Amino acid sequence: MSVFVLVHGSWHDGEAWTDVAGELRKLGHEAHHPTMAGHGIDADRDVSHDDCVASFADYISEYDLTDVVLVGHSFGGSVIARLAAQIPEKIRRLVFWNAFVPAHGTSVLDNAPPAYQEMLPQLAALSTDNSAMLPWEIWRDAFIGDADLARAQETYRMLTPEPVGPSVEKLDMRAFYDLTTVPRSYVLCHDDAGLPPGDPQYGYLANARRLGVFRLVTLDGSHEVLYTNPSLLAEKLVLAGRD
Amino acid sequence: MSVFVLVHGSWHDGEAWTDVAGELRKLGHEAHHPTMAGHGIDADRDVSHDDCVASFADYISEYDLTDVVLVGHSFGGSVIARLAAQIPEKIRRLVFWNAFVPAHGTSVLDNAPPAYQEMLPQLAALSTDNSAMLPWEIWRDAFIGDADLARAQETYRMLTPEPVGPSVEKLDMRAFYDLTTVPRSYVLCHDDAGLPPGDPQYGYLANARRLGVFRLVTLDGSHEVLYTNPSLLAEKLVLAGRD
Amino acid sequence: MSVFVLVHGSWHDGEAWTDVAGELRKLGHEAHHPTMAGHGIDADRDVSHDDCVASFADYISEYDLTDVVLVGHSFGGSVIARLAAQIPEKIRRLVFWNAFVPAHGTSVLDNAPPAYQEMLPQLAALSTDNSAMLPWEIWRDAFIGDADLARAQETYRMLTPEPVGPSVEKLDMRAFYDLTTVPRSYVLCHDDAGLPPGDPQYGYLANARRLGVFRLVTLDGSHEVLYTNPSLLAEKLVLAGRD
Repeated sequence: MSVFVLVHGSWHDGEAWTDVAGELRKLGHEAHHPTMAGHGIDADRDVSHDDCVASFADYISEYDLTDVVLVGHSFGGSVIARLAAQIPEKIRRLVFWNAFVPAHGTSVLDNAPPAYQEMLPQLAALSTDNSAMLPWEIWRDAFIGDADLARAQETYRMLTPEPVGPSVEKLDMRAFYDLTTVPRSYVLCHDDAGLPPGDPQYGYLANARRLGVFRLVTLDGSHEVLYTNPSLLAEKLVLAGRD
Repeated sequence: MSVFVLVHGSWHDGEAWTDVAGELRKLGHEAHHPTMAGHGIDADRDVSHDDCVASFADYISEYDLTDVVLVGHSFGGSVIARLAAQIPEKIRRLVFWNAFVPAHGTSVLDNAPPAYQEMLPQLAALSTDNSAMLPWEIWRDAFIGDADLARAQETYRMLTPEPVGPSVEKLDMRAFYDLTTVPRSYVLCHDDAGLPPGDPQYGYLANARRLGVFRLVTLDGSHEVLYTNPSLLAEKLVLAGRD
Repeated sequence: MSVFVLVHGSWHDGEAWTDVAGELRKLGHEAHHPTMAGHGIDADRDVSHDDCVASFADYISEYDLTDVVLVGHSFGGSVIARLAAQIPEKIRRLVFWNAFVPAHGTSVLDNAPPAYQEMLPQLAALSTDNSAMLPWEIWRDAFIGDADLARAQETYRMLTPEPVGPSVEKLDMRAFYDLTTVPRSYVLCHDDAGLPPGDPQYGYLANARRLGVFRLVTLDGSHEVLYTNPSLLAEKLVLAGRD
């Protein structure tokens, strides 16, 4: 049985994983899902990407976790990659789920399509704390298209403004790309239009391909299948996370 | 419950949707599937793309339909895009199913791979009315590869020659790309080799990506799953078409 | 009912097909799965691509097989393409399963991603017979990520070193690309990361697209679904192989 540490993506906090964590526990695994610095209600949004990484490094240290299956969703992919490079001896496997895997020297936003690159700073400029809320239209169709309207609305209300700083930081990814001892998996949802599907440069698989050798695990569902089908996602995370 | 208007693609007429429309009605929805100008047996093939669009505009007007979920298959994608730009107030959502979404100033044929761009005018030159019949080999494997031979033959006999004019017209798509009020979905069949699958320029997802923000709904089946699995397609059209 | 001749890929021998062949027979088909020259335990690894092709030409001739559904897995794609060009009158249909379809004048290795292009000759240089064993890490994650660890280990022990010669030969594919009488299908596993998934140049679909008109049949599973889900693969081969 595995020890999962689940790292959420933008606009989410650790609560987003509640149902998936419950399913993982039902399957006999341990599941942790803390909240990233700068995320959740009332958080200080003035954080760096290092702060985001530190949230999980500190948690793993505090709870003395080892042999961790470290799962990163979306923006969380950039976090687990850099975290694994810091504490490789504690990480059994990396699991990227519809996640960013930034090339060295790029920001997460550099890896998002041009429309997002334009939108995010514009939204941030309207805020008082350099944060951006995800527009409803994007959430409803591109992110959670597999939910009915009521569930899409209910989950939208759980989102909080995303600190833009960590997404525009150029990231030092060298230690991650030098890391050869931690195996990795990529979990891909067929119905995810959060990034432009199939795009040679900006699609999910363009991120996955930067992993070199990796295990691919696919499933039906949207970018937010953690809300719409948590039992299926949990089952696939187990397949992705096993040795 | 929704009001579906189903727009067929090349070589088809409205009858192609009969089984899907029946399934949609079983699920409690209203389903309309008129035939496009220039299509079907004995039609005058000397039509323009505007004529194709007008068939459905007229139908919607005649039956006084509103809140329409407008579905376009294949060539029909170019029709629903231009129609929505004409009567956005009557359209609740656009659903493109393995469909063309032409860039402004391009023809549908410009968005087909080079082999089709060569073949279609050659076939049309052999006709007396600038139409082209789909070669059996393409139908059987690239279009309806998920049918058994008998069903492939039976459905091939339902096809009629396609007027080539509307496919080679350079289309004014500006009003469509300026349209921001009508949400859109893209339904993608995993086993469709009608367009070259995964092609960065000519594949289905290259068309889908022109939609900007959209909902993605995938399913198993070929370009002609309306014949081979109408109940599954109907179910997915409902998921694609809901608010 | 069909006559299947199953052509294995690199590191395998004919035994790899045992379970799939059994499933095909249960479904009422005939299934043959001889071993390619240079492959299997104790084989002489000093073989050419022509020798690989000849293994199956000779087998088909010896058993006087006609109307063959010729299936090629991975490297085997290059073999069935060239074999079909030699004896088109005996081949009813070609089925490429997550297979290479080399452009004329390229080697199989030219169609593998740069990391493999580097690795294979390096591994061969360490051998005494210009052969290369597949590294465990690649097998476990990129090839057979859908197996549990025990099954991955057990099947890894069935692999044998691959003769590198046939993979680096520049292949004359003109007769294949001139061949228009033998229809072809491409079977694609969603969870196969053996080649970089979705890669515009090196992905499986980049190979499939060279077939021109073809039937596409997709399924869940890895590059080695012949071990992990032989009944599903057999079922899909039947759909891919029928007229």
